[in-house]
Amino acid sequence: MSKEITSREQDYSKWYNDLILKGGMADYSAVKGCMVIKPYGFALWEKMRDQLDKMFKDTGHVNAYFPLFIPKSFLSKEAAHVEGFAKECAVVTHYRLKNDPDGKGIIVDPEAKLEEELIVRPTSETIIWNTYKDWIQSYRDLPLLINQWANVVRWEMRTRLFLRTTEFLWQEGHTAHATADEAIAETRQMLDVYAEFAEEYMAVPVIKGVKSANERFAGAVDTFCIEALMQDGKALQAGTSHFLGQNFAKAFDVKFSDKENKLEYVWATSWGVSTRLIGALVMAHSDDDGLIMPPRIAPLQVVIVPIFKGPEQKAALDVKVNEITKEFKKAGIIVKYDDNDNNRPGWKFAEYEMKGVPVRIAIGMRDLENNVVEVARRDTKEKKSVSLDGLTATITQLLEDIQQSMFNKAKAYRDSHITPANSWEEFEKLLDEKGGFISAHWDGTAETEEAIKEKTKATIRCIPLNNLQEEGKCILTGKPSKERVLFARAY
Amino acid sequence: MSKEITSREQDYSKWYNDLILKGGMADYSAVKGCMVIKPYGFALWEKMRDQLDKMFKDTGHVNAYFPLFIPKSFLSKEAAHVEGFAKECAVVTHYRLKNDPDGKGIIVDPEAKLEEELIVRPTSETIIWNTYKDWIQSYRDLPLLINQWANVVRWEMRTRLFLRTTEFLWQEGHTAHATADEAIAETRQMLDVYAEFAEEYMAVPVIKGVKSANERFAGAVDTFCIEALMQDGKALQAGTSHFLGQNFAKAFDVKFSDKENKLEYVWATSWGVSTRLIGALVMAHSDDDGLIMPPRIAPLQVVIVPIFKGPEQKAALDVKVNEITKEFKKAGIIVKYDDNDNNRPGWKFAEYEMKGVPVRIAIGMRDLENNVVEVARRDTKEKKSVSLDGLTATITQLLEDIQQSMFNKAKAYRDSHITPANSWEEFEKLLDEKGGFISAHWDGTAETEEAIKEKTKATIRCIPLNNLQEEGKCILTGKPSKERVLFARAY
Repeated sequence: MSKEITSREQDYSKWYNDLILKGGMADYSAVKGCMVIKPYGFALWEKMRDQLDKMFKDTGHVNAYFPLFIPKSFLSKEAAHVEGFAKECAVVTHYRLKNDPDGKGIIVDPEAKLEEELIVRPTSETIIWNTYKDWIQSYRDLPLLINQWANVVRWEMRTRLFLRTTEFLWQEGHTAHATADEAIAETRQMLDVYAEFAEEYMAVPVIKGVKSANERFAGAVDTFCIEALMQDGKALQAGTSHFLGQNFAKAFDVKFSDKENKLEYVWATSWGVSTRLIGALVMAHSDDDGLIMPPRIAPLQVVIVPIFKGPEQKAALDVKVNEITKEFKKAGIIVKYDDNDNNRPGWKFAEYEMKGVPVRIAIGMRDLENNVVEVARRDTKEKKSVSLDGLTATITQLLEDIQQSMFNKAKAYRDSHITPANSWEEFEKLLDEKGGFISAHWDGTAETEEAIKEKTKATIRCIPLNNLQEEGKCILTGKPSKERVLFARAY
Repeated sequence: MSKEITSREQDYSKWYNDLILKGGMADYSAVKGCMVIKPYGFALWEKMRDQLDKMFKDTGHVNAYFPLFIPKSFLSKEAAHVEGFAKECAVVTHYRLKNDPDGKGIIVDPEAKLEEELIVRPTSETIIWNTYKDWIQSYRDLPLLINQWANVVRWEMRTRLFLRTTEFLWQEGHTAHATADEAIAETRQMLDVYAEFAEEYMAVPVIKGVKSANERFAGAVDTFCIEALMQDGKALQAGTSHFLGQNFAKAFDVKFSDKENKLEYVWATSWGVSTRLIGALVMAHSDDDGLIMPPRIAPLQVVIVPIFKGPEQKAALDVKVNEITKEFKKAGIIVKYDDNDNNRPGWKFAEYEMKGVPVRIAIGMRDLENNVVEVARRDTKEKKSVSLDGLTATITQLLEDIQQSMFNKAKAYRDSHITPANSWEEFEKLLDEKGGFISAHWDGTAETEEAIKEKTKATIRCIPLNNLQEEGKCILTGKPSKERVLFARAY
C-alpha cells in the first residue's frame, strides 16, 4: 500500500481527495468553490465527452451554444424553476472596474451598474426556451434536438472536487417536440444513452429510475435518473433526464401550428451529465494504491517501462519497444513509452499505479532474450510474463477483459448492496451498518420522505423503472404502499 | 442573386449580418451583446476546434480547465494588464437571489454580498499564473505546455455577431519556460500553427507580424499576430501569440530552481484564437448569394439532391444515391442526401448555396440512364455533367481543387491590396479609395501612430516578420524611418 494515500478504511473522504490531488486529476483554486481540472483529469473528461458526443449525434442531436448570462427576470418565469435555482447563483451587477480614487487598486465602477442583473447560468432552460420562441413556428420546425457543452455555476458553500463545485462542466440537452409522447420517448432514450455510457464505458453499473417529487428537477413534470453506488455504500446520481411537459413553453410562450393549423404549446425535455461523473468513476473503482481507469475511456491505456543499465541496453530495448508501440498505435491502443531518465522504474511503477493506467508493461534485457515482457494489470495487480509474439492481440484482449472485470466487480458489489428492509429498525440498522440501497415501502408522500431524510439523512434515490408492484406498508408511517423504492444516503 | 441577401455593394455590414442570420450561423440573444451560436455555426466551430486541437497536441500541448471567475485583486497584480482589461469586464458581486418582500418577483439578496468581487475571465493569465505558482518548483517541471478551450467575457457596447461580442468562445494557451529563448521560440511556433491553420484549412491568407506597442496585449513584452484581409478592404486580426517575458511570473511570484539550484523567475507565453475566426472566414470568401465554406472545414462538404416524379422514380434514385453516399463516407467525404419531401429542388439549391456547401450533386432519371450526375461547385458556380464511374475520386479531387482555388482567389485579392504609399496625400487617398494594407514608413512613436489613427481610423496592423530594411521618411511626420509597416482600417 502506498504511503502517500490515506486508506479507504482510515478516512474515505481523505482517500478520495488524495486520489484526486495526487493522481493529477484536479486542484483547488484561488476562487472559493471553483476547481482547476488538471491535464490528466481533463484528458479523461475529453474521452468521456467525445464518447457521449458521438452517442448524442448518433441519436440525431446537434450541438449549439447559448449565452453564459441569463437576465434575472427569466429565472422567475417558471415558478418551480426559480425556487430551485435562485438560492445558489452568481449575480453580475456591474460591467466595469475603475481605479480607486484613493489610489488603492481598483474598485467596481458604481456608474457601470446594470439595469437588470445577469445570472451566470445554473442551467439553461430559460435562455434556451426564450430563443426557441423565435425558432419554432410550425410542426415542420420540430423536433428540435439540441445539445450544449458548457460551464455552469451553482453557488456552493461546502465543496468537494468534482462532486460538488461552484463551477462545473457539463452537457445539457434541450429538445422540443410536437407531442407529449414524443418528448417522453426522448427523455427515456437519453436515460438509456446515459446508462449505456455509464455501464459500457465507465464500467459503473447504474439503476434507472424516476425521482420522487421532492427530488425532481425544478420545473420538470418527471425526472428520470441513473443512480450509481460508491464503495462506501453511498449512492451518487450520475445523470438525469427530465420530461418538462409544456412548462417552459408556457413560461416563454412557445407555440407551434400543427398539421391542422392549430396553435399548440411545444413539449420539452432536458438532460445532463457533468464532470461529477469523474467523481463517480474514481469512487466506484479505485483502491488504496490509487486510481483505476476503465480501459475504454482511460486517457492512457498502456505504459511501457524499460529496465536497463547503460545506453547500449537502452538502445536495444528502444528498438523493440518502438516496434511494439507502432503496432499498438495501429491497433488503436493508447500507449506511452516512459524512458524518462530522471526517474527509476520503481518510481514509475508507483506513479502509473497511482494514475490507474490499466496495463503496465516492463521490459528488460533478460525479457528481450526470452522474447517476453512482463505485463501487470492495474485492477487485480496480477503480473505475468507474456510472449512478444502476438502481443498486440494479447493486450487488446486484456484491455477488454479488464473493462469487463471492472464492471463485474462493481456490479457484484452493487447487487449485494440492494437490501430489502421491512421494519424501521431494520431500515436504520442497514443504513448505519451496511449502507447501499435499501429497498423499502413508502407511503408516497413528500412529508414522509422529508421525515425519513431528517431522521437518517437517507433520501429516495429513485423508483426503479419496471418496478415490481407489491402490497406493503410504509417503513415509517405504516400506511399502505404499492411498491418498494430505493433509499440511500447519497453524494 | 438571391433576393433575401443584401449585396456587398449595397451595404457590406448588412450583407454580413444577412449571411450570419440567414445562413444559420448565429442569432442575437436576449442578453445584450451575447450571441447564440446556431447548430450550423457551431458545427463549423467544432471542425475548426478539432483541427486546431490536433495541431496543439501534435506540438506537445495538453488541455486543462481553469476557473471562470478571477478575484478582482488578481487583475491588479500586473500593472499593464489591469489597464487593458478592467474597463470591459463583468463583475459578480452577489451569490444569491431572494423573493422580493414586496412580492415583485426576485431581487438580489443584499446579505449575499461577496467580500471580494469576482471578475468573469476576460483572459486567464492571472488565475493561471496564480495556479502555476503551486505547480512549478524546479526546472524539471518545465516547460509547462497547457491550453484551455473556454468562454470569455469582455463587455462590449457595440457588438457584431462573431466579430465583437461580449461573450465569445476561444482557446488560450499558457506556457511556462526556463529560458527567454525557449519562450520566444514557443511564441513563434504557435504563430506558425495559427498561420498554417488559417491558410491550409480556412483558405485565408495571412500576414505574420509583430504589433506596435500601442496594439500590444496588456502585459506582453511582444505580441505577434496574423492579419487577414476582408473583401471590403478592412483588415482583421485573426490570432495573436504573446511573449510575456517574466511579467506574470513576477506578478505572481513564480520561480523555479535551475540546474545550478539558483532561483529564477519563469518565462511565459500566451496565445489565442476565437470564434472571431468564423467572421473572418465568412467575410473573406462569401458572395452575394451566401456563404462559401472551404471544403477542409466545411460542416457539410457535399449535398445530393434527387429530382424525380413519384415514388417509383424516387426508389430508383435512392438505390443509386445510397451506393454513392456509402462510398463517399468510406472515403471520408461528409455528405448529406436531402430527400426531404417538404421542399422542392429549387428551394434546396438556394438553401445549400446560402449555406455555402462546397459541392452540390443533382441526380434525376435521365442522369441515371446516362450514368452521370450534375455536379455544381459553390465557389465558381460551375456546373457540369460527371460520370458516375469513379465519382468518389472525382469529388475528392474537386474538393481539393475548391480548397486551393478559394485560397488562391483570396490571396490574389490580398496581394493586390498591399499598396505602398509615399506621401500623406497618397496614404489618405489609398485608404479611402482602395483600402487594404498600406505599406508606409512610420517614425516608430506611439504618438504618431495615435495621430494617424485619429485622422484616418487606420492603425498599424503589424510590422511583418522578415521585413525589408529600407531608409525612408515617416508618412506623417517626415522623421527618419528604417522600415515600412502595414497600416489598415480594421475590424
